[in-house]
Amino acid sequence: MSLTMYSSSVPVFLHFLKSLSVVLKKGADHAADKKIDEKVLTGARLYPDMFPLTRQVQIACDVAKGCGARLAGIEIPKYDDNEVTFAELQSRIEKTVNFLKSIPEEAINGSEHKAIKLQAGQRELEFVGDYFLRNWALPNVYFHITTAYNILRHNGVAVGKMDFLGGQ
Amino acid sequence: MSLTMYSSSVPVFLHFLKSLSVVLKKGADHAADKKIDEKVLTGARLYPDMFPLTRQVQIACDVAKGCGARLAGIEIPKYDDNEVTFAELQSRIEKTVNFLKSIPEEAINGSEHKAIKLQAGQRELEFVGDYFLRNWALPNVYFHITTAYNILRHNGVAVGKMDFLGGQ
Repeated sequence: MSLTMYSSSVPVFLHFLKSLSVVLKKGADHAADKKIDEKVLTGARLYPDMFPLTRQVQIACDVAKGCGARLAGIEIPKYDDNEVTFAELQSRIEKTVNFLKSIPEEAINGSEHKAIKLQAGQRELEFVGDYFLRNWALPNVYFHITTAYNILRHNGVAVGKMDFLGGQ
Repeated sequence: MSLTMYSSSVPVFLHFLKSLSVVLKKGADHAADKKIDEKVLTGARLYPDMFPLTRQVQIACDVAKGCGARLAGIEIPKYDDNEVTFAELQSRIEKTVNFLKSIPEEAINGSEHKAIKLQAGQRELEFVGDYFLRNWALPNVYFHITTAYNILRHNGVAVGKMDFLGGQ
């Protein structure tokens, strides 16, 4: 696969959403093994005013689907942010994966110079496609997946960097 | 800047190494303000068997310089892993940035299909250039920069995601 807007986005998101799913599975198994209420882990955070694990997963999914949809020029699917359990988080990832897989490669290729506008808190941001992908969407997805990993790691779940990197 | 191996690597590393530098500066300022020995922060980790902040910064730098050098087919500069203070970590980042800036754009462009071999612990990994960049080097750099951020965030340093994302 050569270097295109598609190859730099959807397959990368799919690869790392799969890693996120593996990491969350280890979290769920850890809770079951140790007889910990799973909501202790899904609600865990690294600092009181930081988002908990559930929100990290929701944002990682949202940035990935938003990026795919924006580059392809199609409507962004909306999901309720109501996940609490590991199973619900897995289902959020699965919906996101299925949506990303539904985007035709040719709809994303050629979007290097496409104008992208988005609202981030109070600010309206404007990008061109390739900068948006490289400097906004990908780093945001990695940030939230890594933070989800770090929350579980901090809580004693036996995840390692190869779980994050996935099969290589 | 269009989508090339260079535009997808060196400028992205430079952007996020700058973010790492900003985040570490906030860590140093926090230590000074609160009269905390800075080594408490530079030696902090999220779990006893996880790498401390210093090592996260070293690895982020190493993956970035290793990627640039490997794609360009030039020797990877070796740095001693002896940083302890924030100033030393800033200097590690600065060396890495200067090395990355010294790589000519044309040395990296066209490396999509270049064979890349590397040792990761006990394993020898083989990649082609674009997969190596997308699925190994970039996620590794983001992983360690985000973890450095999370270590400081967890210790009460007032960093926010916009420090990580940098100027947009």
